[in-house]
Amino acid sequence: MNVNLDVIFASNEFKGKAFLEEIRGKKPLFVCTIATTETAKIAGISAAGKYPEFTDYTPPADAELLLLGKCKCIAGVPVTPDGIPTPALITMSALHLADVPVLTASGGLKVKPQIPFLDLGGNPGRDIRTGNAVDNVAEVIARATTAGEQLAKHSDYMVIGESIPGGTTTALGVLSAMGINAEGKVSSSMPENPHELKVEAVRAGLTAAGERFGSLAKNPVRAITCVGDPMMPAFAGLIIGAAGQIPVLMAGGTQMTAVLAVVNALNPDVLCNAAVGTTRWVVSDASSDIRGIVSQIADVPVLAADLDFGSSRFDGLKAYEKGIVKEGVGAGGASIAAMAATEGAVTKVMLLDDIERNYALLLGVK
Amino acid sequence: MNVNLDVIFASNEFKGKAFLEEIRGKKPLFVCTIATTETAKIAGISAAGKYPEFTDYTPPADAELLLLGKCKCIAGVPVTPDGIPTPALITMSALHLADVPVLTASGGLKVKPQIPFLDLGGNPGRDIRTGNAVDNVAEVIARATTAGEQLAKHSDYMVIGESIPGGTTTALGVLSAMGINAEGKVSSSMPENPHELKVEAVRAGLTAAGERFGSLAKNPVRAITCVGDPMMPAFAGLIIGAAGQIPVLMAGGTQMTAVLAVVNALNPDVLCNAAVGTTRWVVSDASSDIRGIVSQIADVPVLAADLDFGSSRFDGLKAYEKGIVKEGVGAGGASIAAMAATEGAVTKVMLLDDIERNYALLLGVK
Repeated sequence: MNVNLDVIFASNEFKGKAFLEEIRGKKPLFVCTIATTETAKIAGISAAGKYPEFTDYTPPADAELLLLGKCKCIAGVPVTPDGIPTPALITMSALHLADVPVLTASGGLKVKPQIPFLDLGGNPGRDIRTGNAVDNVAEVIARATTAGEQLAKHSDYMVIGESIPGGTTTALGVLSAMGINAEGKVSSSMPENPHELKVEAVRAGLTAAGERFGSLAKNPVRAITCVGDPMMPAFAGLIIGAAGQIPVLMAGGTQMTAVLAVVNALNPDVLCNAAVGTTRWVVSDASSDIRGIVSQIADVPVLAADLDFGSSRFDGLKAYEKGIVKEGVGAGGASIAAMAATEGAVTKVMLLDDIERNYALLLGVK
Repeated sequence: MNVNLDVIFASNEFKGKAFLEEIRGKKPLFVCTIATTETAKIAGISAAGKYPEFTDYTPPADAELLLLGKCKCIAGVPVTPDGIPTPALITMSALHLADVPVLTASGGLKVKPQIPFLDLGGNPGRDIRTGNAVDNVAEVIARATTAGEQLAKHSDYMVIGESIPGGTTTALGVLSAMGINAEGKVSSSMPENPHELKVEAVRAGLTAAGERFGSLAKNPVRAITCVGDPMMPAFAGLIIGAAGQIPVLMAGGTQMTAVLAVVNALNPDVLCNAAVGTTRWVVSDASSDIRGIVSQIADVPVLAADLDFGSSRFDGLKAYEKGIVKEGVGAGGASIAAMAATEGAVTKVMLLDDIERNYALLLGVK
């Protein structure tokens, strides 16, 4: 059987197809890596939470939604200031349709989820403008590596997603510290990508840390410590631990490029087992350039779930077609995994149908 | 192939053999459930720590040993007051020989392990003599159930062990509250089983709680809350979540009977998929009676790893033959799983050999 899946090969088609063939019909484990950073509260930076303080609740609420089908630490589901719901709705539907097991891993949280979660010894992140944003980076990487090694022993492959508001700004921070040109290239959950705000925050952080563009090219641990976020060491360690044994799909948008840069600097060998999995909305986004960042780092393929919400009966989902939200909580990678795990039995049409059902249920609309 | 494994069918031989056949050649996940209780600090109750305060470090140190092959939160390894090392040495060798993945789950800890661990929302336990020993019991059971459901999706079967000093006293507490006659029947890690001390503590706890023998037969949540420990809701929830889908080997001695009573009261149906796995030292112990307790609860088979340290060149291991330590950290169940997973390629002789190697390495002897 060789049904075509609703997957776009956005870069390195040859390697991307090989990766997809390798995971086809296999049983994944989805790990949702969550963390918080004060960076998300810089005015105008993030849409992941209606008010800045809400961003502390978005990651635990997203994780609860994936595991329980509803949030516990907040009423309803996380929404943007315009009322567009979290992409965790997409992830939740994809994982449910393919019966994919979920594990939540915390890199450091202000608010803990009311579900089981893997504690990796991290703390919530500070504003990157301090130049001292993340604690215990090396230790969290080490613990996450141990976790990745163990989890890889009982999974065919791993899909790792993230939820951390402010994450594209911290991604720009680490990429810049490591000498990767990403200004104007990181994505945004908002229709107008606030590139200038992000660049300002990163420059302030690098200055405060006594660093500059590229000065930490060979020191990813310090790059995260200064201007990164606590999701990164957790995510990077999981890849380092798991990808030595099994394929790993890095499920996310331009934030994945910062993690990729970190892993590439620490343990490049494992990246032969890795791919980035995102959404069509990210790879076709005119205000960011995921391919342009990845190509500066490593020869890792970028796959995209060919999701299309243009025909949705809900404005909150149609908004995705206008470039709002675009990705998050591993939505694209989870969709790819659901299609691959079921050998194409799960299609983008079926996905939208289930997402609409969950949307109606959770947002109380018809 | 039908090699005989070094396993004793201690009760219900028919069901025990069926269980063993079911897991033979399959890939287990070992979950080490850890927690602490102030009950362990009652003078003369526990041998799991050279001084009472050390008992806070024993569970995290045991979990570190399983995952890393060495402890991080203490120097060396946990030892009894007589210098006999933790049974985690046995577990560690068994899991390593069969390449079994390990996950640590916390029910509530005073000292956190320096490794990844699953947080289930529990707190450290209080002295059962207060009659108010454990917080959040229903919530921890619910979260552990969720974790068990997810983990079962990517494991052939699960082996669950525990490390909690003072655990046979709290087991007696819950069994008594639930009307199961266990006085004089719970095991001990010490050569002289302090039955009187345990009975006194349990009676004090029941009185303080306004309860009596059997008054909580149908309320296991309150039984744990009053006179149990925080390992129990974590362990019970994992079984309830997992055993609906896959076999679960409850790896431990008489403490398992309290967990069995809790699960039997909450969700008896899942117990058709469960067995108790322990050591020969427990089932042949004259100072306790695991069969006598299990038979009052449910028709669940008891298997025992036929370990024999009589020929060991180390006095610290020979001591097991004198009834010291006997079991803990899932030593017996892990040994059974190692033998079953490798279809008998791992034998008790090979196990002792590896345990002696690790003993020499970790205790710095030759």
